[in-house]
Amino acid sequence: MTMNANPVRGTRDFLPNEMRVRDAMQSIILKTYLESGFSKIHTPIMEDLERLDKSDGGENLNLIFKILKRGQKLDLTKAELTENDLADSGLRFDLTLPLSRYFANNRNELRLPFKVIQIGEVFRAERPQKGRLREFYQCDIDIIGDETPQAEIELIHTTAKALLALGFKDFTVRINDRRILSAVIEKAGFAAADIPSVCITFDKLDKVGLEGVEKELKEKEFPAEAIARFMEILSKEDFSTIAQAVEYGADPEVADRLAKIMELCKELAGGQYNVEYDKSLVRGMGYYTGTIFEIVSPDFSGSIAGGGRYDKMVGRFLGEDVPAVGFSIGFERISEILLGKGAEFASSALRIALLYSAEDSFGEVIRRAEELRKEGYSVSTVLKAKKVGKQLGALERDGFKGAAFFGEEGVKIFENNN
Amino acid sequence: MTMNANPVRGTRDFLPNEMRVRDAMQSIILKTYLESGFSKIHTPIMEDLERLDKSDGGENLNLIFKILKRGQKLDLTKAELTENDLADSGLRFDLTLPLSRYFANNRNELRLPFKVIQIGEVFRAERPQKGRLREFYQCDIDIIGDETPQAEIELIHTTAKALLALGFKDFTVRINDRRILSAVIEKAGFAAADIPSVCITFDKLDKVGLEGVEKELKEKEFPAEAIARFMEILSKEDFSTIAQAVEYGADPEVADRLAKIMELCKELAGGQYNVEYDKSLVRGMGYYTGTIFEIVSPDFSGSIAGGGRYDKMVGRFLGEDVPAVGFSIGFERISEILLGKGAEFASSALRIALLYSAEDSFGEVIRRAEELRKEGYSVSTVLKAKKVGKQLGALERDGFKGAAFFGEEGVKIFENNN
Repeated sequence: MTMNANPVRGTRDFLPNEMRVRDAMQSIILKTYLESGFSKIHTPIMEDLERLDKSDGGENLNLIFKILKRGQKLDLTKAELTENDLADSGLRFDLTLPLSRYFANNRNELRLPFKVIQIGEVFRAERPQKGRLREFYQCDIDIIGDETPQAEIELIHTTAKALLALGFKDFTVRINDRRILSAVIEKAGFAAADIPSVCITFDKLDKVGLEGVEKELKEKEFPAEAIARFMEILSKEDFSTIAQAVEYGADPEVADRLAKIMELCKELAGGQYNVEYDKSLVRGMGYYTGTIFEIVSPDFSGSIAGGGRYDKMVGRFLGEDVPAVGFSIGFERISEILLGKGAEFASSALRIALLYSAEDSFGEVIRRAEELRKEGYSVSTVLKAKKVGKQLGALERDGFKGAAFFGEEGVKIFENNN
Repeated sequence: MTMNANPVRGTRDFLPNEMRVRDAMQSIILKTYLESGFSKIHTPIMEDLERLDKSDGGENLNLIFKILKRGQKLDLTKAELTENDLADSGLRFDLTLPLSRYFANNRNELRLPFKVIQIGEVFRAERPQKGRLREFYQCDIDIIGDETPQAEIELIHTTAKALLALGFKDFTVRINDRRILSAVIEKAGFAAADIPSVCITFDKLDKVGLEGVEKELKEKEFPAEAIARFMEILSKEDFSTIAQAVEYGADPEVADRLAKIMELCKELAGGQYNVEYDKSLVRGMGYYTGTIFEIVSPDFSGSIAGGGRYDKMVGRFLGEDVPAVGFSIGFERISEILLGKGAEFASSALRIALLYSAEDSFGEVIRRAEELRKEGYSVSTVLKAKKVGKQLGALERDGFKGAAFFGEEGVKIFENNN
């Protein structure tokens, strides 16, 4: 009986033609980040389960793939087993928790500010849906050890540069500060402890509108007066600017800081993309402490990049707080958009096939291939088929740009070569 | 209380300076493989547990990291729970099983011979020891759909080329064919069903010597006559050549095929590395069906690359056999060797720091950084410290090659720049 060849639910295989585009995209992103003075690191995909559980990862904590204990550590005879009896580690659901742990673990080898690149896979047991794989790449840059607005500005500028280099246009950077919304919520009369829950509801404003937000807050049984006051503020048009948020409870210093970030980001954008204050921006992760931002594109319904400041996370590992801020590109989303548009990125070498016959000396064939490689071609040795014309057509459909014949001079470049 | 910041047991973090070397190494390997006409693919890290269990992966089957079922599928109330009640998927332990599944899953999109590159992480719950991480990279090339010796020759030639490009010298390619050893074992009087077990013992010849092999075969209670006959053959010097293996039971056609591969590989090596027949080469994986090979280096006690022919694996998914052969570089091992030697690979851009003061306009600082990037530098903006001389020394130790000062022309390249 043959075995099922489908990949695990929610994961997928990538074909050579897709990989050529994806690899070119990752190269462009990486090149942009390296040029901007960031350094790449690598952390394990497996993380300690306790660390993952305590990471304030919001909804993602319910989506962790847990790894079974092994050997003696796995005791199945115990009564009333819980998941934590069975698992001791899990797959990372983002690159921020591993980075915070990494920074604490390697603190003595690193200099501040630490400007860092991570390109790697993360795992979430989500209900598979379009654009939401369970195993997917994120491309992150973070700056650890810089509390100034310069850190936010540099991350936003550099992430936007990477998207521009990939050919994205008309995208919008949305910015907010968690503390503005929190202050407004508290001023409206909610208890400080309820702020995260109110934020989660408020995050749905785009989808359910003001009425939907009001309905959910009532279902959560918050004080009617606080809800009424909050709705009153939200319905005021002038709450849409940072300056006016101060009137409704935001700290003027926080508002000033955000305004400064906005101003310089807009200036650096030079009209190539939009930068907007978004009063309803929340971002799901519980670990954000200040500025939060995301990038939306007219090509995709959700955000294609997201990030923010998380000044309290490194401290959990290190014992003292170190300011940190990061921006993550959702690689699968931008890759889906660009592959959908048929984007092609120039590769450095022309891929050609070197056709040979079974009678040819294979040693000589390889030597000829090496000559062509020295001329700059990527050369695949391919046994000649009986119907060479048909074979050439098939090679062209496979993405080959030309062919050479063993024993003949020169390279035939396919006419439709694009 | 602070959380433990150590990575999960058997895994490790990689520092920026290590990553620069590792990424340069992976680029060199990938470039060699692409130039040679192979195409990159990507498969998920998670695989179906049943597939992993039935993969003939030898010892590795005991080292699988298993992933806990989620939601309703995880029933902890059942009596006498087994691991298979708890887990439905696992982390891949090599790239060969995923490739075989991939080929069957995407058969209609792929043309034969399929020459394929995989660079990715694999996971084995081994006892952590030097050079044996639990999460590590392999760099594989495989050819699917070519039963001729050309496939083996091309894989060996191309893998050796990648190692030469990385600066490896004096390495040795050891080659054997599973069928030669199997025939000799059977001819000596062992039952066909016992061949794998005899092979596992014989694999230890290098470590335990002939006497050790004899001892273990006796412990396994094989017929004394077969053991005696096998020992007699092994002790003959003339069993050390392929041609003479035929006298002791090997199929002449298999021996001829191997001799042909050896001859051409030696010719292509052109004296840059050694190619040897190794009668005691077994390779651990149960799925190999013919030629097997590995590469050993004087710099490392184990092999740094290994592979072989696995003509029966794709068939388990596809329902019909498709010939396949692969060669895998153990990336962590070669990376450990080269990092240990202090290898540096030229990077395309000089990394410099652009020092600025808190009073400088940060927008102008970024614009100056962009100018320098256009000149070809990788530029990190860094706030000037009070003691600039000390700061420059620290930047140099961090791997920066020079520095520029905002408001001044030119770039100061560090003198010790290497």
